[in-house]
Amino acid sequence: MSSAVLTAGGELAGSILDMLAEATTDAPGITRVAYGSGERFAHDLVRKEAEKLGAVARVDAAGNLYLTLKGSRQDLPAIVIGSHLDSVAHGGNFDGAAGVVAGLAVMAELAGQNILLPRDLIVLATRAEEAVWFPLSYPGSQAALGLLEPQALEARRSDSGRTLAEHMREEGFDPDAVRLGVPGIDAGTIAAFVEVHIEQGPRLVTAGAPVGIVTGIAGGFRYVDAKCFGAYAHSGAEPRFARHDSVLGFADLAAALEAEWDAIESDGHEATITFGRVQSDPTQHGGSRVLGELGFTLDVRSAEAGVLDRIEARLKAILAEVGAKRGVTFETGPRFTWEPATMSPALTARLDRAATELQMRAPHVPSGAGHDAATFAGAGIPTAMLFVRNENGSHNPLEAMDIADLDQAIRLLLCFVSDFDTDQP
Amino acid sequence: MSSAVLTAGGELAGSILDMLAEATTDAPGITRVAYGSGERFAHDLVRKEAEKLGAVARVDAAGNLYLTLKGSRQDLPAIVIGSHLDSVAHGGNFDGAAGVVAGLAVMAELAGQNILLPRDLIVLATRAEEAVWFPLSYPGSQAALGLLEPQALEARRSDSGRTLAEHMREEGFDPDAVRLGVPGIDAGTIAAFVEVHIEQGPRLVTAGAPVGIVTGIAGGFRYVDAKCFGAYAHSGAEPRFARHDSVLGFADLAAALEAEWDAIESDGHEATITFGRVQSDPTQHGGSRVLGELGFTLDVRSAEAGVLDRIEARLKAILAEVGAKRGVTFETGPRFTWEPATMSPALTARLDRAATELQMRAPHVPSGAGHDAATFAGAGIPTAMLFVRNENGSHNPLEAMDIADLDQAIRLLLCFVSDFDTDQP
Repeated sequence: MSSAVLTAGGELAGSILDMLAEATTDAPGITRVAYGSGERFAHDLVRKEAEKLGAVARVDAAGNLYLTLKGSRQDLPAIVIGSHLDSVAHGGNFDGAAGVVAGLAVMAELAGQNILLPRDLIVLATRAEEAVWFPLSYPGSQAALGLLEPQALEARRSDSGRTLAEHMREEGFDPDAVRLGVPGIDAGTIAAFVEVHIEQGPRLVTAGAPVGIVTGIAGGFRYVDAKCFGAYAHSGAEPRFARHDSVLGFADLAAALEAEWDAIESDGHEATITFGRVQSDPTQHGGSRVLGELGFTLDVRSAEAGVLDRIEARLKAILAEVGAKRGVTFETGPRFTWEPATMSPALTARLDRAATELQMRAPHVPSGAGHDAATFAGAGIPTAMLFVRNENGSHNPLEAMDIADLDQAIRLLLCFVSDFDTDQP
Repeated sequence: MSSAVLTAGGELAGSILDMLAEATTDAPGITRVAYGSGERFAHDLVRKEAEKLGAVARVDAAGNLYLTLKGSRQDLPAIVIGSHLDSVAHGGNFDGAAGVVAGLAVMAELAGQNILLPRDLIVLATRAEEAVWFPLSYPGSQAALGLLEPQALEARRSDSGRTLAEHMREEGFDPDAVRLGVPGIDAGTIAAFVEVHIEQGPRLVTAGAPVGIVTGIAGGFRYVDAKCFGAYAHSGAEPRFARHDSVLGFADLAAALEAEWDAIESDGHEATITFGRVQSDPTQHGGSRVLGELGFTLDVRSAEAGVLDRIEARLKAILAEVGAKRGVTFETGPRFTWEPATMSPALTARLDRAATELQMRAPHVPSGAGHDAATFAGAGIPTAMLFVRNENGSHNPLEAMDIADLDQAIRLLLCFVSDFDTDQP
């Protein structure tokens, strides 16, 4: 699409994203390390741009940035539009940053059209959302709400080996206050948290829609060090009846879990089931081996807790069935879980009405990956998310979001915030 | 069983095997490197023991040892009983050696019972059968028949890095004559080649039989660097419909090949199908990845060439079917093949009659692994094999053959050679 059709906010968004990309280029792609120079540059840039629009900036103990455009009344809780500004190494320019910049664009439209909202509009730029840097779930937004566990401050950054506390202090923030649970913003002062984010799988590309309204953020469980144990043997010598082949045990498991996945979809639910690593022992494997051990990871996600429970129960049954059939055993090893987050039905309905008003196609979509929005939803704050159409997934240099699509999200958000105190179902 | 029931030949076999184990211990297990000190000790020992029994020793250009007990007539081709004396590193004491020692035991019985055969009986101790030392198929028995390809002499031993020719020369043999194809024994002078070997899978253990008569040595084909290619993606972000999951492609392949294996067995044939390595890319895999590539090996064996062709044809069809269903592609990479060897039906029938005469259970069994006997069968020499019951497979210190079971093979062989010129179907 031609940039001629963009809103002024969309034009601003595009130019800020261009500046970000230029300053944080790390070929291929861009790199904005959490609590590193790229993230710092991004925070400084959006702060400067927001201040030009009349917003007031404030930074909390963890370095989260609050850019507040004052409303006409001080007795109403605020609308917060937020996302993160860090990226994975050699990632794309849009994961995170597009959401913060969309918030600035809404501010620019309000300022340009001389609209004074009743409520404060806060654009929140969080810190350290990408788990590749610290092995934590959203420490920035957790700290914003005063919810970060003290031991999380001892987590070490993957590149430097130094702790989150050290990195916070180095950037001029106050890990001691974070440790004490001092929030950057009080949950009770937030009427709605909305996060805009590029989609990470091609649902909107496939649907031909520029924007999607997220219904929920998947929770899940993961076994990171599961193993199927059989018995090593010589492929030429071991007759079939005597084999305990861990590969065939694993293949049975994959097929049986996929049958369960089919059944879950037939019942109208959504989930994903993924084996992210499958690995025989390099010191044992070879062309003429019957494999006595096969290691794997299993990652299961769904926005519905009941579906996760159903898959876990079926998994246990499958492991027993396959074990008995094949003469193999399974060890699932450590299990990690994360809770699903449901988006606010009331906010989702508001976004639906805004889309109708704008004659914009904005289908409902699930989010399989986690986002800062999950922290706010988990804290009981009414939360919504918009996805923007994007090709080639995220966390890679090939992310491809069209600014015209982001502009559609900006229009939708502008309508949402403008109508917030007049809109009626 | 008590050793009291052993033949004198069986007693001798047991004591020679004990001497071998003691001299070549390399905890855990034993090691007799091809053209190394352990193999040399074994050749010297069996030569000395055979000479005590009245046999005449001769060594060919490759170091193969021929121990001949003269028969009454010189116009008849000989009966050859042979196997190898090398072992894998930290292997068991019986793989190979049991077969040579069984031949000596038959000589001991003939001598002890003053039986003069019409034909020469030759016990042949070959060299370098274990492919772990030189990446070759039976270079010792190949050289015995003058069939070793000249370039094989340039193959390097895995531990020393030096060539087969160098190792032969170092042990006092004549690689130049081997290169020229000078045989150690003329195929036309061999009426029958018989190899005794421990079983390498538990068929006889399961059948409760001390000895088995081998029907054929499996041939096969192997893909050592096959890959399933899909597309890498994020497990949380990539919706099911957009996935190209190489793990599920591989699981489909495994299941479909196993269904073909079932069908082959239903049709009364035997085969084995084995994935000896399954491996995702360590630089790419991880808990939240949809895997875009999975490497594997595929090893297929059968004693029937037609069954191998059938599996190969079905494999090609499966790869196309799974590729279309999953949106993945397969690259099978280099293909290695080895021909099956059929045992002589006439010799097998002779062994059957000997077993009946002795009221011994000796079921027919296939050999999935290769043996020196394959060289002789491939050269058109009537060839037979006996397996001796053995637990825990071979190529490991836990090989467990009972001397009482070897004694049964000795009795069967003695009957076979004694009846050779009188036996009638």
